[in-house]
Amino acid sequence: MTGSLDDPSTPFLALERGRVEANARRLRAHLERLGVSLRQHVKTAKSVEVAGIVEPGGAITVSTLAEAEAFADAGYRDILYAVGIAPHKLPRVRALRERGVDLTVLLDSVEQAAVAGVPAFIEVDCDGHRGGVHPDDPALVDIAAALEASGGQVRGVLVHAGESYFADGDEQLRAAAQHERDVAVRAAEVLRAAGFATPVVSVGSTPTAHFATDLRGVTEVRAGNFVFFDLVMAGIGVCSHADLALSVVVTVIGHQPGKGWILTDGGWMATSRDRGTSRQRVDQGYGLVADLDGVLFDDLVMADTSQEHGMLAIRPGSAARLPELPVGARVRVLPIHACATAGQHDAYHVVEPGSRIVEAVWPRVRGW
Amino acid sequence: MTGSLDDPSTPFLALERGRVEANARRLRAHLERLGVSLRQHVKTAKSVEVAGIVEPGGAITVSTLAEAEAFADAGYRDILYAVGIAPHKLPRVRALRERGVDLTVLLDSVEQAAVAGVPAFIEVDCDGHRGGVHPDDPALVDIAAALEASGGQVRGVLVHAGESYFADGDEQLRAAAQHERDVAVRAAEVLRAAGFATPVVSVGSTPTAHFATDLRGVTEVRAGNFVFFDLVMAGIGVCSHADLALSVVVTVIGHQPGKGWILTDGGWMATSRDRGTSRQRVDQGYGLVADLDGVLFDDLVMADTSQEHGMLAIRPGSAARLPELPVGARVRVLPIHACATAGQHDAYHVVEPGSRIVEAVWPRVRGW
Repeated sequence: MTGSLDDPSTPFLALERGRVEANARRLRAHLERLGVSLRQHVKTAKSVEVAGIVEPGGAITVSTLAEAEAFADAGYRDILYAVGIAPHKLPRVRALRERGVDLTVLLDSVEQAAVAGVPAFIEVDCDGHRGGVHPDDPALVDIAAALEASGGQVRGVLVHAGESYFADGDEQLRAAAQHERDVAVRAAEVLRAAGFATPVVSVGSTPTAHFATDLRGVTEVRAGNFVFFDLVMAGIGVCSHADLALSVVVTVIGHQPGKGWILTDGGWMATSRDRGTSRQRVDQGYGLVADLDGVLFDDLVMADTSQEHGMLAIRPGSAARLPELPVGARVRVLPIHACATAGQHDAYHVVEPGSRIVEAVWPRVRGW
Repeated sequence: MTGSLDDPSTPFLALERGRVEANARRLRAHLERLGVSLRQHVKTAKSVEVAGIVEPGGAITVSTLAEAEAFADAGYRDILYAVGIAPHKLPRVRALRERGVDLTVLLDSVEQAAVAGVPAFIEVDCDGHRGGVHPDDPALVDIAAALEASGGQVRGVLVHAGESYFADGDEQLRAAAQHERDVAVRAAEVLRAAGFATPVVSVGSTPTAHFATDLRGVTEVRAGNFVFFDLVMAGIGVCSHADLALSVVVTVIGHQPGKGWILTDGGWMATSRDRGTSRQRVDQGYGLVADLDGVLFDDLVMADTSQEHGMLAIRPGSAARLPELPVGARVRVLPIHACATAGQHDAYHVVEPGSRIVEAVWPRVRGW
């Protein structure tokens, strides 16, 4: 017990632990039914404590070597660094491996494979959203051969359905999940036929992880955002607003009645500039607004922002009335994109849902 | 001398000191001609070393109390906290004042003024972009009276032409600067007529600071972004690309020839999600790309991004060819919005323009 959400200087992050627990239970139960294991992606929370809610000491995915090092220090031993490896980062990778951490890297070119010298996943592309080779591109086998020649090993194939973040409705999400699975299994088959054992078949994104119905041939699923969820995920139908575990606590610092604005001390430095719902059916601006106990105000949106100012307003077209929030009142802003919002802060103030009692302050891993 | 831009793990910030010096000289010379002093806003760089290039120990504006505390520790004594004061922050303000720092706050309501008890600026609105009262609103004098009744003092009026960031061309910029000046002087006249001395008349934004031609009645100008400049400022005509002092050094980690992409390890976590040029005549995506010596590639833009990936591509419609940049090559991404990009990092790697030699690593102030 370290005080209340009424105490710290704003803005700061509030984290509802019970919602993380429920979100983790839901995904674990779904993946158990499908017979695959979870390799959680810690890039969203960057917190050893949050990862421990999902599966303490379990297999993880990281987005930076700083995360790998921090989680290795905390006892994690099965770590996949899932950003294509830059050769200058290999000494840090080897240093962790020499400490007994099974840190694997990701690559999608012969250039990278020829210098890797460590166990690696080959990135396979399923929807043209980022890196990766096509499963039937002859380069796939060339990369595997170069990797083993460098002293490395083909640990597995990795596919990420980036397109799923733009899906609309359950049918599109199920199709994205099926396609991600099919491409991964096909790539593993190609590699095995060429003589590479390829023990791991890794797929995942938070949307496809929740909508997959058939993961035969897949051995593990990666997902990260599910620990917190956010308004983008709610907009594509992966969660409800009641599942969102993260919010930014801000203070009212003024009013512009002529513009219908309530001004707060939470600007984009506190929420990020992410506008991920701008292409969805309902644009949530820079976030929805709840009271300090987590109850949403009717149609109150963070409509605009500058570095340290947030402008709250009623959604255009709504008949809702601007709530009476005097200078000094605290409210919570629910994030558009939890990975980006959390990235603006150094720590979480941990509460239980509906409570203002801060039970702990958990640090985040920073930098690269 | 602490190595070269070829050494640190990417992504990281490179800062060209000579450009900061030139940018500072240009603005100081302009304001000297107009007979007003500069109160630099340290929110962009959040660096004692960068502020020292502009005017060591001089008057500053801050966007957070964390900045105020760090600059007080570094010997700065005239500090304006230019975000409307939340009452719970007053004890930190008073603690700094008791250390001998002339820390002033900003407010625009009787509610705030009645509890302030410290010297304050009254925020006056000139273009409806944020907070502030209109100069002819009777509330202006009520706020001043409440402030003095609380034991505070009307140190001055503050106007910020937020609209100037959306200006297009010199004429609009000059008009915004003139309007900002006129509103500030009018507000000071109203307060003085009501018996409040109002010694300081403070205006400013980076665009209006550079385009003001008449600042009679104004005593100080605030500007922050000018130390680094960025592609938004270049787009509205306040600087040229050659003035940009900040860039993010990233490494090529892959290619998608079918999509015309070069992939890097610098995603939005390194550049921010700011898309400030999306409404300008030339959309620069997430940034323009230069080689490690700072020479821009022809029409190469950071076109898309995920958390730790940047996708570089030739600007649509351009006849330029994608440069040959192998895996491992380092390039620099020039920021869309320097305040936001710098905010994603903890330090600057300082070089001279055109040089790769890192002469120093300067820390940034973080948090609130």
